[in-house]
Amino acid sequence: MQPVVHVAPEADRAIEEAITAAGGRIGPLDEADALVWLDWDSNTFDVDLPERVRWVQLPSAGVEAWLARTSDGRTWTSAAGAYGLPVAEHALALMLAGARRLADCARARTWTDPPARPLDGSTVAIVGAGGIGRALMRLLAPLDVEVLAVTRRGRDGTLPADRLPEVLPAADHVVIAAPATPDTRHIIGAAELEAMRDDAWLVNVARGSLVDTDALVAALAAGTIGGAALDVTDPEPLPDGHPLWSEPRALITPHIANPAATLRRYLARHVGENVARFARGEELLAVIDAQAGY
Amino acid sequence: MQPVVHVAPEADRAIEEAITAAGGRIGPLDEADALVWLDWDSNTFDVDLPERVRWVQLPSAGVEAWLARTSDGRTWTSAAGAYGLPVAEHALALMLAGARRLADCARARTWTDPPARPLDGSTVAIVGAGGIGRALMRLLAPLDVEVLAVTRRGRDGTLPADRLPEVLPAADHVVIAAPATPDTRHIIGAAELEAMRDDAWLVNVARGSLVDTDALVAALAAGTIGGAALDVTDPEPLPDGHPLWSEPRALITPHIANPAATLRRYLARHVGENVARFARGEELLAVIDAQAGY
Repeated sequence: MQPVVHVAPEADRAIEEAITAAGGRIGPLDEADALVWLDWDSNTFDVDLPERVRWVQLPSAGVEAWLARTSDGRTWTSAAGAYGLPVAEHALALMLAGARRLADCARARTWTDPPARPLDGSTVAIVGAGGIGRALMRLLAPLDVEVLAVTRRGRDGTLPADRLPEVLPAADHVVIAAPATPDTRHIIGAAELEAMRDDAWLVNVARGSLVDTDALVAALAAGTIGGAALDVTDPEPLPDGHPLWSEPRALITPHIANPAATLRRYLARHVGENVARFARGEELLAVIDAQAGY
Repeated sequence: MQPVVHVAPEADRAIEEAITAAGGRIGPLDEADALVWLDWDSNTFDVDLPERVRWVQLPSAGVEAWLARTSDGRTWTSAAGAYGLPVAEHALALMLAGARRLADCARARTWTDPPARPLDGSTVAIVGAGGIGRALMRLLAPLDVEVLAVTRRGRDGTLPADRLPEVLPAADHVVIAAPATPDTRHIIGAAELEAMRDDAWLVNVARGSLVDTDALVAALAAGTIGGAALDVTDPEPLPDGHPLWSEPRALITPHIANPAATLRRYLARHVGENVARFARGEELLAVIDAQAGY
């Protein structure tokens, strides 16, 4: 069948081309089998969905704010995995910035000798092995890096979350790439920061709530860990005057791991793949599980 | 044969283990077939080489300062290639820092929205395709990056140096990874900077002399290029108060691409490989060609 797909709240050429190329047809909401919603703010979603619409594709990978809507009998899909590569690339940039002391260098006004080290030859713990974690493993593959992947249940060769206390002391870099759920809130707190090596870097490209910010500020001030590179913070945006802004061991990037300039390029691929699967009656990518919370 | 190798000016366990593992025997200078010299400063070399010594291994990849000594009928080898991976890793770190605006972020004290972009999907010009350039290509392989490699003569699928004017306008990142020779001095000058895109980044992990610093300062001030991330400068060290220290589009790292902490680890592999080749009478890696200048 050729599904009719409605794109809202506004048209987008890259997305519509991907839908058409995948065998879909762009149409109005009252003829639509599926809705592709492009606004990231869940509060703007004011669509009265016709019965005919059986599938709703959302634009974001994290869907905490959407969960309440997704138990209406329709299939709702997130963009989980769509941005895995650009976000993993940012995680790699932040790990390299830690290893290579780039924040110190950017702030320096004189030639010094910072204790740089290679990422090659190091051990990297990745908490979460979804789209971001798997993409990061591919980016690290050309280096001699030992990856310790931790997931909730420890499937597919990963370690279960209850092994985190063993993993943390072994890692040169701890990368947070897990979804934000009640279970993962403050998955990195005072005890976990204490378990990390004093030269290890914490990298967060997931959600600010996974790290206990106050505990992190204390650990950085005490030198318990080597540093932290955070693309997401709690609170977010990080307010002016927050101690992380002036912490020499911290590097803050303002939630740019998935750059705005290329967001639609990556989303279009994901939407195209899902339209093709929908047309064939196959299981879609990134179906939201309201129980699991992502 | 089992070659006798002398290590000087001081012993080093990692290097000596690599020599022994490769079939060599550590011995005094007056019994030595080969000398492994570990001091980077050519001025400290005060060895009166016995006739028996047929091969001298130096510790650095760039050997401009050693060339005058190397025409004595012996084989002299540099460490070219030994540090290809860690230096390429630093080039990757600097490219990602440019793409992801990490220097801006490190200097910020407030949540902003810098124009970050992925390295994925971009075009990278690599000037020089020796050990660093080839290692960088391997690191970029998991990304969808178009690599345009430029070498002096354009061998092995690379473009010859006279095609540089065509390559520069196509590149999002221009990485300098060529040896310092009279031919490569100021290979990036005012005309080349003018040919680059105004959002492109210049990355130099080779030698400061390959870039015309004054022309670069002018191009950065004028916004002719997007930015410059330099591990090497001219003059080096970059003096306090130099305009590059306060240029917002510049990121300076103090010649740390090959970190001191792991230098001997990479050199030991290279020395071991050369000892094995020397023992078998094979051609050594990184034989210095005084005519070519590297």
